[in-house]
Amino acid sequence: GKRMKRVMVVIKDEIYNTGKKDPRRMVHSLKVGLALTLASLLFLLDPFYLDIGSNSVWALQTVIVVLEFTAGATLCKGVNRGIGTLSAIFLAFIVQIIAHHFGRLGSPVCMGISIFVIGASTTYARFISSLKNYDHGVTVFLLTFNSLVASGYHDRTVWKSMFQRIYTIGIGCVVCLIVSVFILPYWSGEDLQNSVVKKFEVLAELVQAEIEKYFQENKDKEEDSKSSEDSSIQKKYQEILECSSKDESLATYASWEPRHSRYCYPWQQYMQLESVINHFGHNVFAIHGCLESQIQCAVSPQAPPSVRALFREPCQHVAEEVVKVLVELATAIKTHHHCSPHISDHLHEALQELNSSIQSQPRLFLTSKPIQDAEVYKPMELQWWQRRRQSVEQSKDEKTRMINPTKSKTAVTCLEFSETLPFAAFASLLVETAARLDLLIEEVEDLGKAAHYEEFHEDTDIK
Amino acid sequence: GKRMKRVMVVIKDEIYNTGKKDPRRMVHSLKVGLALTLASLLFLLDPFYLDIGSNSVWALQTVIVVLEFTAGATLCKGVNRGIGTLSAIFLAFIVQIIAHHFGRLGSPVCMGISIFVIGASTTYARFISSLKNYDHGVTVFLLTFNSLVASGYHDRTVWKSMFQRIYTIGIGCVVCLIVSVFILPYWSGEDLQNSVVKKFEVLAELVQAEIEKYFQENKDKEEDSKSSEDSSIQKKYQEILECSSKDESLATYASWEPRHSRYCYPWQQYMQLESVINHFGHNVFAIHGCLESQIQCAVSPQAPPSVRALFREPCQHVAEEVVKVLVELATAIKTHHHCSPHISDHLHEALQELNSSIQSQPRLFLTSKPIQDAEVYKPMELQWWQRRRQSVEQSKDEKTRMINPTKSKTAVTCLEFSETLPFAAFASLLVETAARLDLLIEEVEDLGKAAHYEEFHEDTDIK
Repeated sequence: GKRMKRVMVVIKDEIYNTGKKDPRRMVHSLKVGLALTLASLLFLLDPFYLDIGSNSVWALQTVIVVLEFTAGATLCKGVNRGIGTLSAIFLAFIVQIIAHHFGRLGSPVCMGISIFVIGASTTYARFISSLKNYDHGVTVFLLTFNSLVASGYHDRTVWKSMFQRIYTIGIGCVVCLIVSVFILPYWSGEDLQNSVVKKFEVLAELVQAEIEKYFQENKDKEEDSKSSEDSSIQKKYQEILECSSKDESLATYASWEPRHSRYCYPWQQYMQLESVINHFGHNVFAIHGCLESQIQCAVSPQAPPSVRALFREPCQHVAEEVVKVLVELATAIKTHHHCSPHISDHLHEALQELNSSIQSQPRLFLTSKPIQDAEVYKPMELQWWQRRRQSVEQSKDEKTRMINPTKSKTAVTCLEFSETLPFAAFASLLVETAARLDLLIEEVEDLGKAAHYEEFHEDTDIK
Repeated sequence: GKRMKRVMVVIKDEIYNTGKKDPRRMVHSLKVGLALTLASLLFLLDPFYLDIGSNSVWALQTVIVVLEFTAGATLCKGVNRGIGTLSAIFLAFIVQIIAHHFGRLGSPVCMGISIFVIGASTTYARFISSLKNYDHGVTVFLLTFNSLVASGYHDRTVWKSMFQRIYTIGIGCVVCLIVSVFILPYWSGEDLQNSVVKKFEVLAELVQAEIEKYFQENKDKEEDSKSSEDSSIQKKYQEILECSSKDESLATYASWEPRHSRYCYPWQQYMQLESVINHFGHNVFAIHGCLESQIQCAVSPQAPPSVRALFREPCQHVAEEVVKVLVELATAIKTHHHCSPHISDHLHEALQELNSSIQSQPRLFLTSKPIQDAEVYKPMELQWWQRRRQSVEQSKDEKTRMINPTKSKTAVTCLEFSETLPFAAFASLLVETAARLDLLIEEVEDLGKAAHYEEFHEDTDIK
């Protein structure tokens, strides 16, 4: 009773969230339903007296398989299906003719051999990476060829219904195209652009979050809320860094799409931009890694966050400017405008500030623990070693260990090195990030040229 | 003529390489051919006088769609297909009965509505992420349901051939299972393990390559060979960091596999290990990023690689030990043995060495440019700025720009900060990497316990 209810609530949430995440999913579902109904009714009511009967299966199959979320994907799959079917029919026809010459006994042998050869070679072809985009066509080819050869031997009427099958599939494709292109179409090009814009926005968010965390960890020390926040940040990184295969197929589909709005979507440029974003993302992720071990150093009483506090202002300033530039790039792409030529001027100033503040205090980059500490150090190291062993022993019993307990051990090791070392890593990565931003800006400029972005207006900058 | 020949050579290479990369692909292709021939001949020769005729399509379709590379995937898809078909038949039967009550005019309307509702809701269900693994079953359900409802209205014999369809699909599934489980079976569990082992090995290779490059870049400065090498390294990172979705599905399929050898493959543990490896990989990639900007700093005459040379030995030592541990972990997993309890002892010593060598020269962590340089700095910064602008102008004409020109700008920015800063980043990341290795060791230990690895023997250590 109660448990059942809880399960129902979870299911309801999942269903609701799936739609909430992207409301177009609901629309797409309705579109599929509509296309299926159209195709079915065409055969149920048979208004053109085609008398297709059981061959209607092919139209429905076509709708189910071909009608994809975006127009480009539907086009690509439709063409794949068409070519696959036609070439399979052609080849099966040839095999049938050849097999006919071998008589009653030789004919099945000949067919068996052809099925084996075609089946094996086609399956092998599916592994070839450059044919990856045509996988659906290859499958349809294999399916059609085999069913024709195998069933053709039994009843010769199959060849008569061949034309029926071809135009049934044709009708299915037409229904799909009409529904996907003319009724609330979704374009891969737009999706690709949104994905790129979203990456910029998420990166801006992450840089902001990171810099805040790095300099704030003294105020709130609730570990619980942090770890849950951490895992959500982790998830965001994964989303950014791992969705390239999804975007790759979006780009492939976008290449199938006709010009459909007053903006154009040069998918090659987007892919190029994506690879630069990916690089940038890795850099930001490296800062995140820095943070993870860093927090621990500061929490422990031995290492006061003195170095950090000194460079807090300039670092935050640089990060703020990085965030600003990222947001500006995102809006530039979103609104199809070139970005300001002075986009990174402030960032440049902030970098300068950070540089001079580091140069003005050269003494700080002395290791914070002077040489005399080197003697104390050895037992500490051993202690760390013992602690590691202990924790391994302990963990043997615990079943409920977390997946990413990065902090537990790292902390202790980095303690032995001076506080300056990790801060230098952080600062260096931050500067690197800022420097890479230039590449991003250039790439966006290139994209803007390829996509004929509108000129930059001063007023869009001011707002 | 000549061009045709070149295209042919490229195609031949691609075909050859596909097989060379994984020879099992050829075997799998032959297996598919065999299964198809078996299924076809069963219907061509009809040894059991089943007289299935055109329904043989379903058996062939089943073989083509269900027979996957690994046994687990085949099992999973076969069960999906079975459940999808049965539930679709059941639902279509109910709809047919209800529609029957509405008379000649109401019946098509009722069917149309049912097709719309089922089509829309099923398509929506496919977006729900927790149903992702059952996608094939959902597609089959939709396909079967629609073809039954739509064709059932025309000829009533469809219901008679229903049983034929069910056992044809059954025969197809049995053929698939026999071919995939009993003839040279490939197991997802093994694939998953190999993927994990390969990740360890590639990481070891990458750490080695990185450390060598970092300390050697003075000897060879041929930029051309470097950039090609760079892109291959980049590719390796992408392989490691992005194949998690592939491994996830491998893990899903592995969960379907029965115990098939004297070793067991606890797929949950492998996935947990993968996530730790991924984290580790990101860390190594961060070192790589360090390297990219670093090279440039050293190449320019202003920044002598003095700091680097000083800490060369201990850094290389740490890296060597990291590589050793990674290789040892890889062999431990490969041979199903626990790894030595003293696996990271040497690494620990190397870390200690690095630490003391850094602590023994605290003065070096002064910024290499003293304060008086701060005055010289401003014009340089501006110069950098102008250079960037210029290069943007230049690049406007060039069409053949590379995708990852990271080095071009980064160099100039990092110059303004002292040489120590980037080195500190490098050292800090290296130490972090070494520290994270402990997590990897622990995770492998856990895996060893879950998979009942054999005890560690001294002799395997020595060899």
